[in-house]
Amino acid sequence: MFSSIDYIHMSHALRLAEQGLYSASPNPRVGCIIAYQDQVVGSGWHERAGLNHAEINALDMAGAAARGATVYLTLEPCSHYGRTPPCTHALIQAGVAKIIIAMEDPNPLVSGTGFALLKQAGIEVQVGLLEKEAYALNIGFITRMTDRKPWVRLKIAASLDGKTALNNGMSQWITGQAAREDGHRWRARSCAVMTGIGTLQADDPALTVRHIETVRQPKKVVVDSHLSLSLDANVLRGAETFIFTASNNREKIAALRDLGAQVVVLPDTIGQVDLVAMMRVLADSGMNELLVEAGCQLNGSLIKARLVDELVIFLAPHLLGDQARGMINLPELINLEQKHMLEIQDLRMLGKDIRIISRFS
Amino acid sequence: MFSSIDYIHMSHALRLAEQGLYSASPNPRVGCIIAYQDQVVGSGWHERAGLNHAEINALDMAGAAARGATVYLTLEPCSHYGRTPPCTHALIQAGVAKIIIAMEDPNPLVSGTGFALLKQAGIEVQVGLLEKEAYALNIGFITRMTDRKPWVRLKIAASLDGKTALNNGMSQWITGQAAREDGHRWRARSCAVMTGIGTLQADDPALTVRHIETVRQPKKVVVDSHLSLSLDANVLRGAETFIFTASNNREKIAALRDLGAQVVVLPDTIGQVDLVAMMRVLADSGMNELLVEAGCQLNGSLIKARLVDELVIFLAPHLLGDQARGMINLPELINLEQKHMLEIQDLRMLGKDIRIISRFS
Repeated sequence: MFSSIDYIHMSHALRLAEQGLYSASPNPRVGCIIAYQDQVVGSGWHERAGLNHAEINALDMAGAAARGATVYLTLEPCSHYGRTPPCTHALIQAGVAKIIIAMEDPNPLVSGTGFALLKQAGIEVQVGLLEKEAYALNIGFITRMTDRKPWVRLKIAASLDGKTALNNGMSQWITGQAAREDGHRWRARSCAVMTGIGTLQADDPALTVRHIETVRQPKKVVVDSHLSLSLDANVLRGAETFIFTASNNREKIAALRDLGAQVVVLPDTIGQVDLVAMMRVLADSGMNELLVEAGCQLNGSLIKARLVDELVIFLAPHLLGDQARGMINLPELINLEQKHMLEIQDLRMLGKDIRIISRFS
Repeated sequence: MFSSIDYIHMSHALRLAEQGLYSASPNPRVGCIIAYQDQVVGSGWHERAGLNHAEINALDMAGAAARGATVYLTLEPCSHYGRTPPCTHALIQAGVAKIIIAMEDPNPLVSGTGFALLKQAGIEVQVGLLEKEAYALNIGFITRMTDRKPWVRLKIAASLDGKTALNNGMSQWITGQAAREDGHRWRARSCAVMTGIGTLQADDPALTVRHIETVRQPKKVVVDSHLSLSLDANVLRGAETFIFTASNNREKIAALRDLGAQVVVLPDTIGQVDLVAMMRVLADSGMNELLVEAGCQLNGSLIKARLVDELVIFLAPHLLGDQARGMINLPELINLEQKHMLEIQDLRMLGKDIRIISRFS
């Protein structure tokens, strides 16, 4: 159904889409190639919200050469007026002959309507080339559109025996440089980095991207049921910070808002932050991928609430022993059928450390 | 210094030596090729103690063709009268022209003397071809000869968050079939499989090789300071069982000996088994590779005593949470410099599980 030339152009379009890995959100990462057979006449990608969509950049480059050409697009083109005019319109006007699309748009405002308009205009449309790869690239955007929650990725650095910190709280430099840099790449591609009050008080992290280049810093999210974070916390500096709390301490809330933080009061029935409602708020704020860098308490609460999609675990080649702190606090299991099942997605060495990516199954 | 033909023949000799993986102990695994250029005229390996050494098998096959040939041998030939006459003698008598040896014999009774005799007889001798591979194949034999202890390998099956059993002791089927079969291969190549009284009382393991073919069962070793194991324990059936204890309970000792077990009373100053002395006894009993399949107590005690050489960790793709039991009980660390450092040797998927091989550095 698809030719080898089709595969080459769509792979190219996916590589272009990846250029937006650190910048396109809250929009999806999209790439576009316009070609006659093996000859590329236009290429483009979406850099960030408010700027041209990938199709428009590619059409601009192709100019009159777009007429009669084939378009390779990693996501169904939009058909509604958002911040920019609909791309289906531009593609039809340019007179392209055929459009090959990796996957449908998961956005209910768009899904399928782009196809219909293109077909009406007499353009041949094919869908599903390298769909899995296109899906992976926008997994956060897709999850937000379909489940009204971000793609929640938990990052954990631990010793080979599964310990994240000494009993006295010491945890700096568990892993080596390659793993730490990789951690910053996960931050850079995320819309926001989340932590809990325990980690905040122990380590006072800034939660910013360092060691690698990025055009924007992710937002920061703190889960702090009793609003006990310090007004001097590093997390309150720089990019926008969301603080989710169950506390109505007006004075503290006002002080935090004065510092530029967004405070969201979302108590559940037992006086903790309602984590499910929190994820809806984050989705509605345009968060595609959320990276959680927390301790065993918040890790456990999120997993128990079935809000975590993916674990990125770094295991350093040393042992800390059973007195040290564990990864994930969960209620005690009574039988092994209750275990939380995962599937390993990726396994590799990073420097002297091991990285394991897994997803809940 | 070595030609590509040399590499081919020595690789072949190493593969032959591997045939003795499950049977050669307490002797080393040794392979031998006799060749003229690329033509093999003799090949052999050592199957088990009391049977011919690899060189003798290869010379038998080569017959008169050995005269003037080159011999490839994975370990320096013996020059002393043991259960069989010295192989150096046979090689000299056969009139071989040249001998290429992967590594020197670590046995102080042999090391270097074989070379000297061969050279005296006018045979050209070269050493060091694929030495690392030859060393790896006999790491247990080498450790026993040089350190008077077995190569101690700890096998641990855990969840991705480093938990080996539920708090109530349940631990069956943590890992999948491929990992379990691999576990039996580690047992088969070991001279003995060791466990502690905690695991014995919780799981009553037989510690035998199943699911794969083997010509002999490993011996079994139980660490049981207070001699509290049951006389009905599965571990007391089948192959020879060593029980190390700090208890002088004569009645129990006699009953265990009646069942065929070897009971060794080796108390340390605090009434536990003296683990360092135990390893000497095991080495003196001809144990090359020792596989430990125990719980976090014995694991921790062996690591604390710096008696463990290698960890084979299977991580299953699920989470059990912090209430479950950990891998290794160690005294609480006060700062991260005290951590026990490892180096990752091998990382791979086995079915849906992860296998990590690491060594203390």
